[in-house]
Amino acid sequence: MTKWLKKKEGEFFDALEKRDVKHMRELFNKVPTVDLAEFADQVDDPVKLAFIFKTVKSELTADFFTELDDDTQEALLHVFSDAELVELINKSYTDDIVDVLEDMPANLVSRALSLCPKDRRESVNKLLNYKEDTAASIMTTEYLTFHSDVKVGDAIKAIREAGRKAETVYTIFLRDDKRNLVGTCDLDDLIFAKPEQTLYEIRNQEFLYTKVDTDQEEVAAKFKKYDINALAVVNNDLKMVGVITVDDIMDVMEKETSEDIALQSGVVPLKDEYVETKPWRMALKCAPWLIVLIIIGVFSELVLSQFQEKLAIVPALIFFIPVLMDTGGNAGGQTCGLIIRALALREFEVKDFPKVVWKEIKTAAITGLIVASFAFCVFMIEFSIPGLIHTDLVISQKILVSAIVSLALFSAIVLSKFVACALPFLAVRLKKDPALTSQPFVTTIVDVCSLLIYFGIFMIFYTTGFFPA
Amino acid sequence: MTKWLKKKEGEFFDALEKRDVKHMRELFNKVPTVDLAEFADQVDDPVKLAFIFKTVKSELTADFFTELDDDTQEALLHVFSDAELVELINKSYTDDIVDVLEDMPANLVSRALSLCPKDRRESVNKLLNYKEDTAASIMTTEYLTFHSDVKVGDAIKAIREAGRKAETVYTIFLRDDKRNLVGTCDLDDLIFAKPEQTLYEIRNQEFLYTKVDTDQEEVAAKFKKYDINALAVVNNDLKMVGVITVDDIMDVMEKETSEDIALQSGVVPLKDEYVETKPWRMALKCAPWLIVLIIIGVFSELVLSQFQEKLAIVPALIFFIPVLMDTGGNAGGQTCGLIIRALALREFEVKDFPKVVWKEIKTAAITGLIVASFAFCVFMIEFSIPGLIHTDLVISQKILVSAIVSLALFSAIVLSKFVACALPFLAVRLKKDPALTSQPFVTTIVDVCSLLIYFGIFMIFYTTGFFPA
Repeated sequence: MTKWLKKKEGEFFDALEKRDVKHMRELFNKVPTVDLAEFADQVDDPVKLAFIFKTVKSELTADFFTELDDDTQEALLHVFSDAELVELINKSYTDDIVDVLEDMPANLVSRALSLCPKDRRESVNKLLNYKEDTAASIMTTEYLTFHSDVKVGDAIKAIREAGRKAETVYTIFLRDDKRNLVGTCDLDDLIFAKPEQTLYEIRNQEFLYTKVDTDQEEVAAKFKKYDINALAVVNNDLKMVGVITVDDIMDVMEKETSEDIALQSGVVPLKDEYVETKPWRMALKCAPWLIVLIIIGVFSELVLSQFQEKLAIVPALIFFIPVLMDTGGNAGGQTCGLIIRALALREFEVKDFPKVVWKEIKTAAITGLIVASFAFCVFMIEFSIPGLIHTDLVISQKILVSAIVSLALFSAIVLSKFVACALPFLAVRLKKDPALTSQPFVTTIVDVCSLLIYFGIFMIFYTTGFFPA
Repeated sequence: MTKWLKKKEGEFFDALEKRDVKHMRELFNKVPTVDLAEFADQVDDPVKLAFIFKTVKSELTADFFTELDDDTQEALLHVFSDAELVELINKSYTDDIVDVLEDMPANLVSRALSLCPKDRRESVNKLLNYKEDTAASIMTTEYLTFHSDVKVGDAIKAIREAGRKAETVYTIFLRDDKRNLVGTCDLDDLIFAKPEQTLYEIRNQEFLYTKVDTDQEEVAAKFKKYDINALAVVNNDLKMVGVITVDDIMDVMEKETSEDIALQSGVVPLKDEYVETKPWRMALKCAPWLIVLIIIGVFSELVLSQFQEKLAIVPALIFFIPVLMDTGGNAGGQTCGLIIRALALREFEVKDFPKVVWKEIKTAAITGLIVASFAFCVFMIEFSIPGLIHTDLVISQKILVSAIVSLALFSAIVLSKFVACALPFLAVRLKKDPALTSQPFVTTIVDVCSLLIYFGIFMIFYTTGFFPA
């Protein structure tokens, strides 16, 4: 928070304590609405909240309300009179009301819906019922549409007369006689055109649209790729039903990225922001994956239990278990992170799997070679410092142990990168989020395999009689 | 790629082979420029590229060129005549030229600069010299600015006459007599205002701006928070020097997120997209962290070497090393992922550290309790299945070993979440990117501590004489 904002925050709470309406109104003239909403979020008392809300300039109430926390919104909705609720609904864009109602208890939702004007209620209800995370769930039903035969001058006049009812006036959608979408115009196209031209003449032919049930992540990818401000949403008959604006898409990008990061870190995605999530709820998001991974980890216990007699012969082998497991996990985590990100950015598709996996194998071989050679030197240095590693191995056996560990490291890196590359593709193939194949998941699977490879390599050398029987 | 686009791609390469100018031009009318650029990126032959470029509609050449890959751009720049180069520069927005030149070899840059008109050369040079990742490095110098006394009607007329020279006409910046920024108007404000009003009367007073040297990630946070389309960039005298538009910000968000994900996965961030990075280069990005982590891992080897005699007494302790290490690492990775994301989204600041760390400790205690109790049951079940775990421990010792491991798990989870929470804050404090404190890094540090705790707890029970001496 800047110093200026900090000062305004102090003034805000002063004015609130003194019930100084004039000062409050002044603040609402100077401070951005979103920051004022953050101040208000700190207030718990519904009476005080209602007072704050009443001092908000009439044209900003809908904005202010939308920016508040879920909890604050709920507190306010409870103290609102029916008249106040109707006013708020009428002032808000449909998609904003829907966002608010989605997080409210059922009784508040039905009260709000019953107070909605009939035409409004229908569109709110429709949006509430669209499947979460689809294009339809983030679209708004307020947009500007004209018949394509309308003249530019008349369109500008109509826009001015209608006023700011649409969420975006920057993109205008053109329909033909059958109400099919035939093109779009940007507001600046109108400014630069002659008033007597028709909208059809100046339309963008290469206009884009999306279906109602398209995943919002795909919609976001379209916005990024084509640098657009608004996108038409059409139903299965290709009739336009709504519009998605770039500000909603930025929220989607942020939410989807947070979800991916949570999943990749082995956390069930949080419903709210990190700071708003209580510790016990956070624990319930963290514990499930840890438990699943402990169950998978049972296999590594079984492997070690099988090989305990061999480990007793050359205890030095035990020392390198952590470094082998860590390196395998880390190498897989690298690939996992890059592949899932590239899939999210649509850098390649499922059918590119052979190409990608071949590339990862080459990468893994080179990485493995560099890292294993380096590790061999580190191990030899460790062994040669007197008293550092307690072992009764002779020098040739020390070289052999270093070589076995390095070879196992190389195999673990290649195997791990292969698994980490294959799992996200498998997830997409099974229509799951690739981010589910998180780094912890790869680590735990690879650990078991790495241990098996490690002991396998040791057994090959062991049969040569190089180690004491 | 959609079927439609796939078909157009086929047509594109057919027309290219036949040098069918008419068909090529038709395609450029129908297919979005960004997709055509993707087709062209697949062509290596500079002669063919030059042919494609010549078939692009004159008003789209700059757009088309900007969307091409670095390699394709370089190939084209080499075959361009001076006249062609000058035309391209004149048609492009300054920030787009700068983006292109930043990735070109020095001789191409100086050739392009020498061909720039003088006024253009100055602004290109200035942008090239601004520090990377600052607001200035992504701003453009083409924007609309008016004296605040200008009337709305005159402004609209002036905008129409000037045409599409500015990268955004949706936001207009107002200056006073001293050329200070005094407000902004959105294009729709002009449409809704009366022609005889002055811009000053309809201006947004709450306008935002950013300094030239502000980090681009902070600028992106401002765009997201305030839902704006364009932001003024001012120098240290608060004079306006450029503007940042929302499409540039979406690219920044994408790039910064990719960088954070790479760092958190323990990879040096890639310069290009994943698909464009060659395996040997990828290996060089992956190997360094793996090697650093192997060096840190030496400590775990030393711990195990110290405790080998104890391990020989109760070999069953060895079996649980992987699960202990994995769980510690995974628990830390969860916190790491969430904290770094929350820091990136500015959910809290460095000064909130005590609050956040206290919350993480509470979360860790609850998570640890759930996971450790569950793990205890899993271990007891394992021990009670005949022949599964090879050990000669009696039942009371099995319970004790399960308890020791569970206790160590609990400690590892709490410790790991604490370290994972503290390290990103420490990084910010030291003015480093918090994403540097990646999951692999936390894992490796926590591993050493977990092993020490594990053996520490064992030693306490060992001295009670519960295990064979």
